[in-house]
Amino acid sequence: MGKRELIIVGGSAGGVQAAICAQKHHGLKDILVIRQEEKVMVPCGIPYIYGTLGTVEMNIMPDKLLGEAELRVGEVVSIDRNAKTVTLNDGEAVGYNKLILATGSNPVMLPVPGIDKKNVFFVRKDTDYLRELSDAVENARHILVIGGGFIGVEFADECRKRGCEVTLVEILEHCLQLVCIEELCIRVEDMLKERGVNVVTKNAVKSIGGNDKVEFVELESGERIKCDVVIIGIGTVANTKLAEDAGLEIGPTKGIKVDEFQRTTEPDIFAVGDCAEKYSFFNGQPVPVRLASVATREAKIAVANLYTAKWRNVGSIGVFSTVVGDTAVAMAGLGDTCAVKMGYDVVIGEAEAMTKHPGTMPDTKPMKLRLIFDRQSGRLLGGCACCIRSVGEVANLVAACIVNSMTIEQIAIFPMGTHPWLTASPLSYQLTEAASDALHKVTFRH
Amino acid sequence: MGKRELIIVGGSAGGVQAAICAQKHHGLKDILVIRQEEKVMVPCGIPYIYGTLGTVEMNIMPDKLLGEAELRVGEVVSIDRNAKTVTLNDGEAVGYNKLILATGSNPVMLPVPGIDKKNVFFVRKDTDYLRELSDAVENARHILVIGGGFIGVEFADECRKRGCEVTLVEILEHCLQLVCIEELCIRVEDMLKERGVNVVTKNAVKSIGGNDKVEFVELESGERIKCDVVIIGIGTVANTKLAEDAGLEIGPTKGIKVDEFQRTTEPDIFAVGDCAEKYSFFNGQPVPVRLASVATREAKIAVANLYTAKWRNVGSIGVFSTVVGDTAVAMAGLGDTCAVKMGYDVVIGEAEAMTKHPGTMPDTKPMKLRLIFDRQSGRLLGGCACCIRSVGEVANLVAACIVNSMTIEQIAIFPMGTHPWLTASPLSYQLTEAASDALHKVTFRH
Repeated sequence: MGKRELIIVGGSAGGVQAAICAQKHHGLKDILVIRQEEKVMVPCGIPYIYGTLGTVEMNIMPDKLLGEAELRVGEVVSIDRNAKTVTLNDGEAVGYNKLILATGSNPVMLPVPGIDKKNVFFVRKDTDYLRELSDAVENARHILVIGGGFIGVEFADECRKRGCEVTLVEILEHCLQLVCIEELCIRVEDMLKERGVNVVTKNAVKSIGGNDKVEFVELESGERIKCDVVIIGIGTVANTKLAEDAGLEIGPTKGIKVDEFQRTTEPDIFAVGDCAEKYSFFNGQPVPVRLASVATREAKIAVANLYTAKWRNVGSIGVFSTVVGDTAVAMAGLGDTCAVKMGYDVVIGEAEAMTKHPGTMPDTKPMKLRLIFDRQSGRLLGGCACCIRSVGEVANLVAACIVNSMTIEQIAIFPMGTHPWLTASPLSYQLTEAASDALHKVTFRH
Repeated sequence: MGKRELIIVGGSAGGVQAAICAQKHHGLKDILVIRQEEKVMVPCGIPYIYGTLGTVEMNIMPDKLLGEAELRVGEVVSIDRNAKTVTLNDGEAVGYNKLILATGSNPVMLPVPGIDKKNVFFVRKDTDYLRELSDAVENARHILVIGGGFIGVEFADECRKRGCEVTLVEILEHCLQLVCIEELCIRVEDMLKERGVNVVTKNAVKSIGGNDKVEFVELESGERIKCDVVIIGIGTVANTKLAEDAGLEIGPTKGIKVDEFQRTTEPDIFAVGDCAEKYSFFNGQPVPVRLASVATREAKIAVANLYTAKWRNVGSIGVFSTVVGDTAVAMAGLGDTCAVKMGYDVVIGEAEAMTKHPGTMPDTKPMKLRLIFDRQSGRLLGGCACCIRSVGEVANLVAACIVNSMTIEQIAIFPMGTHPWLTASPLSYQLTEAASDALHKVTFRH
């Protein structure tokens, strides 16, 4: 049995980022990455396999990213914290000095009858499984997607691009409701409908019917929808089995408990990404944010802290975006409901302006940005926008303002750059003007 | 003679923004805006009149932006600081309680023979003058643009879109050299050349020849270039005549001297925009940055401070961008040369990644971001990128990192959001990876 300086369990975004940083910033040479998959999917690219990309092969994360780290395809079945070894499914035990768990998440199961029928799929990251789904979609006439979160919305839009009939079923009042303000939820639903997706909200799936193979889905409302493929994307749960078996503590949202240095309750074992507990940037409370971008950030922090506690994780800020057709939706930080639930007295600032200036420039579209501030401290809590594709970077700009605790006043005089082809005019630039609007609503009179 | 609560002299970006904020945030009702122009141009839109927009009328800033403020078209010829009055060219004197000077800038003259010939134009903001230029461009076969800064580059590209032959003459080694790193300067030049613009650098104009009307331009190299219109955009000088005559102090870069509250040496008189002196965010030293976005920011600060000093101007960060063809170039903060000249020991971080992920997504382009950090403090000093149009917002993201004094480490773990259609992958997102690259170059070993 050999002993390795660093073992990373898991080969998706968190694991790969850890391997990259350990080599680049620490010059670590003795790294072993153990993962179950022969090939790894780009996690956020999975819905695009079924429309834009066309095949599973187009969505493979290249192994060359791992650099000089050794790759072993296999399953770690146990960790011995005292001996500092991991045991693989072939029985081999390998020692580690430091261990990073990046074991990801699993789809939430849907507890309805018929879930085991043929052509009922969950959104897994497994290449062979996704290839099977690809074959099923290829031959499908009617696809039913359960779950109107980002994944569900993206699957619905992509499958529709293939020309399939598509129905999207969401149990809540609106798609994206858990992260998005109502106005944007409705806009996304409208866009999906325009593109021919049958959007069914406020309705749960009661059962999945058919003989061997799915033939229809029955809703709580009693309606039966014919379909030959069902895709279920209703959330994920942290994959913590290995950690739990090893006696590591699990947190309130069922992720592996970590401190602000990404250390588990065992100091030589770190956890990053979907499998690890996350804490809110705003109040330090556990939050169930599971994103590849969060995983890579945690991996960088964990690696920096392998030998000495150096970098603190100041907490997670959710930054989400998606695209339906040509319209992008993006948000950063807290939504209204969430902010109010956390006890903030919120002030909303909104600004709408054309994406180019003057407004007579060709292909100019109105873009509205909405910011949420804490009235008491004046600090920015969140923001969202919906428009052309640059809103993805606008959400990152909002995230930069949040993470630096910028206030209404500071954002109102943010030194933005503007250009006729690229942004709104300096008089109406959405970020500064939304702050200005909020300013107007708080006390500011001479 | 009446007395007004607030008089604003100048009706471009700074003046308009001051009028908006004074009403919106202070509830000021008694505002008089005095400007010389019957109609005001959107300043950054001016080059686009000559290609994309087509007419001067398409580039007019709507007067409704002024809200309830009274507008007087006329020229202020003097200020009496003791009596607190301004006198107009029709002889009328109007009293003020507070006065904001937003008198803008004038084009730098080119001291060569022949400058007074017909069809030789400077880039003024005057509507009638620009309409004359429009007529001249309409009938031109060969246009020669003098000055390879942003304005010159944009004029050259736009005139070329009309199908004219276009020559761009720059005295320095490269176009955009004063604000841009060499790599991007060359890229812009190459793009202009691809689009059929004749780019002449390291060559000055010796004289402008022809009879009554321009017929050719003679360069220092001896070369004669035939042309029937010349457009000169070689910089601007602050328009400070009114302020100087009133005995207000002028700063080292020839702008009206202001303190961090935008007050001139006379406490009831404020100055904003191109006419006002600017100070660097980095070291407080005077800097000649003249941008509409800077003008609007200063106007907001001035208005907040009219009655009590409330908001400090922490200094200017230049954020520039432009577009040639489909490619956008954007930068924020200091360039290498400037940073070194200011005494910083700089560390460069660079990252290139595709604009979408996986890289197999359609119409994906490589985008490189370059960041400059101060080695000693780790603080971000500047950044630049060149790619698709979202780099305009990327430059604003970089500006947010600069204004918050973010360090290499903080940016390396910036909580960005990513999406297949909108950004690079979380493993290669340019901002965090460029910081990571810089980190690699400074001491960071366990």
